[in-house]
This record gives sequence, C-alpha cells and structure tokens, in this order.
Amino acid sequence: MENDYLEFAKKIAYKAGEIMKMYFNDNNGASYKYDKTIVTKADTQINEYLIEQVKKYYPMHSVDGEEEQFGKSDYVWVCDPVDGTAMYARHIPVAVFSLALVIKGEPIVGIVYDPFTNNLYSAIKGHGAYKNSKKISVNSLELSDKESVAHFDMWPSSDYNIFDQIKKLGEKTYFVSIGSIIRASMCVASGEFTLAVFPGTKHKNCDIAAVKVIVEEAGGAVTDLFGNKQKYDMDINGAIISNGKVHREVIETLKNNYE
Amino acid sequence: MENDYLEFAKKIAYKAGEIMKMYFNDNNGASYKYDKTIVTKADTQINEYLIEQVKKYYPMHSVDGEEEQFGKSDYVWVCDPVDGTAMYARHIPVAVFSLALVIKGEPIVGIVYDPFTNNLYSAIKGHGAYKNSKKISVNSLELSDKESVAHFDMWPSSDYNIFDQIKKLGEKTYFVSIGSIIRASMCVASGEFTLAVFPGTKHKNCDIAAVKVIVEEAGGAVTDLFGNKQKYDMDINGAIISNGKVHREVIETLKNNYE
Repeated sequence: MENDYLEFAKKIAYKAGEIMKMYFNDNNGASYKYDKTIVTKADTQINEYLIEQVKKYYPMHSVDGEEEQFGKSDYVWVCDPVDGTAMYARHIPVAVFSLALVIKGEPIVGIVYDPFTNNLYSAIKGHGAYKNSKKISVNSLELSDKESVAHFDMWPSSDYNIFDQIKKLGEKTYFVSIGSIIRASMCVASGEFTLAVFPGTKHKNCDIAAVKVIVEEAGGAVTDLFGNKQKYDMDINGAIISNGKVHREVIETLKNNYE
Repeated sequence: MENDYLEFAKKIAYKAGEIMKMYFNDNNGASYKYDKTIVTKADTQINEYLIEQVKKYYPMHSVDGEEEQFGKSDYVWVCDPVDGTAMYARHIPVAVFSLALVIKGEPIVGIVYDPFTNNLYSAIKGHGAYKNSKKISVNSLELSDKESVAHFDMWPSSDYNIFDQIKKLGEKTYFVSIGSIIRASMCVASGEFTLAVFPGTKHKNCDIAAVKVIVEEAGGAVTDLFGNKQKYDMDINGAIISNGKVHREVIETLKNNYE
C-alpha cells in the first residue's frame, strides 16, 4: 500500500518538476504575498494538479497544500509545491517540490524532487531513505569538523529570532542560507550538510512533513526548535534537522534564546 | 582590442563550464584546503587551461588564478575558476567561473559564466553590462522594499566579523547566503538582488575583479567594506556590491564594527 502511495507521489513530483522548469526562465509570474514570500504560477499550478489527482485516485484523502487545501480526512497529502520560491523567481536553480502522506499527523511516505539536478529523494517509514535508487544516510560529522556545512533561514519575518544563537554556532561551522529549507534538509539526509535550522514558522506548515520521514530514515533527527517531536496537523514551532549527532548541542545552544 | 579580449574570455568561460558540468555529479575530487574551502579537480583543470591559452594567445600577459599563477605583466588575467566550490562539491548547482583582464589594477573586461543556467554575464569598461546578448541593469530598490534580497558570506574564517551589522541590516531585508559571492553579485548586476556583502578576504584575491566591471557597467557600485575604491593588484579589504542606491547606508551600518 505504501508503495502505491510512493508511486503516486513520484508521478506528481515529476509533473511538478516539468512545471517548475517550464516557468524557470520566465518572469515566473511572481507576485508578493503579505509575508514577503513569493507565489509563482508554478506553485499555483502544481497545487491545483495535486488536488485534481488526489480527487481522482484517492477521493477519500485530503490535501494540505501551501497554496490551496482540499477535503478533510485522517489521510492528508501535505505539499509544498515550490520551496525556495524567492530563489526560483530570481532564476537561481535551488528550489524543490515536496509531498508527504501524513496519517494523524505522522508522515509515512515522503518525497522531495529537485528538477534542476533531476534528483528524487524518497522514504517510506521503516524502509530507509533513497536518492533516486540509491540508499542514502546522514554524515557523522561534528559541527567543528572542517567538512561540516550548516544551513539556516534568515527571514526577517521568522517567528523565532535566533540570529545570536546562529552566530554562536557559526563560530564552529560554515553556515549557508541557500533559500530552501527543504533542499538543505535533503543535503542533511544525503550527508552533504550536517545541520539545517528553520526558525521560519511557529504554525503548522507544509515544509517539514516530507523532510521528517526522509531525514529520519536516513538516520538523522528532526524536532522542533525546542527538541520536541513534531506532528504535522498542528503547530510545528520551527525545526532542527540534523545528522542526529549534533542535535543535542544545537538544542542547547538555541535554548539560551528562550530563557 | 577589448572585443578580442572579450571573445577570448568567452571561449575560456564556455570551456570552463564544460569542465564544471563534467565533474558535477562526481565525487568532484574535493579535498580541503587550509582555509576550509574546497579545491576540486574542476578548479585545477580550468586554471591550467587558462594558463595554457594565455601562453598561446597572449604570451606577454600574465595570469593570477586562484589555484595557480603565471608570468609578470601589467596585463593580468585574474581568474576564479570555480566560485562556490563548497556548493559545487555538494552537488548544489550554484557555482560560476569568473575571469577579468586587469590592467594596472583596473579591470577593463569581465566575464562570469554560470554553466548550470547557461548564462554568461559580461562587460567591457564603458560599454554596458550584458547577460548573454541582453543589456542588464541593477534594480532601484531600497533595502526595506519587500522585493529586496541581499546576500552575505558567512565563513567562520572571514577576515572581517560583521555578523552583528548584518543582523542589523537583516531587520530590513531578506538575507541569503547562496555560497558564491560572484553568483550573488551577478544577481545584483541583473537586478535580482539589491546587495551582496563579502567579508571574505582582506587580501588581494580573484573574487571581485570581474564583478567590479560588470556591476558598475550595470549601474551599480563596488567598493571595499569601508567604501574605498579597490584595485585588483593589491589588498581588497572585503567588498560591498550593491545597486548603488543602498551603498552609503550599508557602509554606514558596517562602520560601527570598526570604531
């Protein structure tokens, strides 16, 4: 059954990738949303396509898309059509499609597709994580190891202001902010990054559900900014995505912010 | 004459792009340099190719490449073979080739090539800046305008620690750190970013020479971190690359660091 869900998710992902590439060199129809993020024609079309396909193949399921929602069910397809829209709209090829099947708040299937490098990351809970057909796993680096790279999102409108904590962590490791928390999290899953920090939203959102199952199946850890487990039908309170090894240290360093 | 130089630079750029794409999906032969940056097989091969071509076509000129140098002349080909190697080595398609012809410290021809989006940025001093065959210009945004995006490099080993100043600027604008100061600067030249800040090196280096002529010909401004003019045969003292409009404000905000 999970395999059918995964095949369904892959089909949606490849179609989403086509749409993303189609508009990439365009003006993208970018228009600004209240929160300074960008919604493009690609976001809207992908979200619509997902809803249409779920209605057709899983009419009892519902859809929680970043741009549009549909239905009410314990089986929810949680989707971020284009993560990294600010980069995408500026013609920087760092943006991905993300989709998870979430049952009562728990992701059991997750997919992330990067159409620019044609890499598909996927996981079924309990069955490992894959980059295309190759099994992937997190690295075993410490933050201070010279190969270590970490990511964090620097939105001025983030719900949590952790700039001072990141400065502290930044004394140990090279931080980038590549414009897509999901793309960065896939770098964690495949061992290229050690850490990704998402101060982005307190509220329930669509960014972390697929990340959760993929990174955990790759041997890493995903929690909220306080170290708590997340459920994807309620507030997520930001996110820490790591190789597991550095997770405790990051939580401890961030903690100073909230005391 | 400048046109011949430009055509020569383009030929090198397209060859460099081929080499970059050839190794992109590989392990890249990444090995760590003392300063935590990565030198890949692509860097080395491109630098060698440039020296070979300069020896053949402009034997009286010299080469100042990030990986290897050649000759001594008032006419210097200043090259960063792969800017963004940390991203490139991690299979993130944000990395560019950069080459400038510098005469007594002044760049008169500059080229940047992004093989992943197949965009070539170029300028001859006094003749405008181009993205492929299309004339480009900087935007006219303020930092606080909602469309504004800025970049800065977060190396822990940067010569200047301006994290607190960036935090201050970050209250106004969305900062990213895409892993390549040259790629970010091309976004400034083409109006997609408002600002890029490079605390990277105090010393003479190969990152800014081509950027300088391209961004200025696009109507923007390039100075060191203190607002002084740079020459590319001596120390550069970091760099501020902007649309011009926000330049003074950025210098003033950074200044607090040095008082």
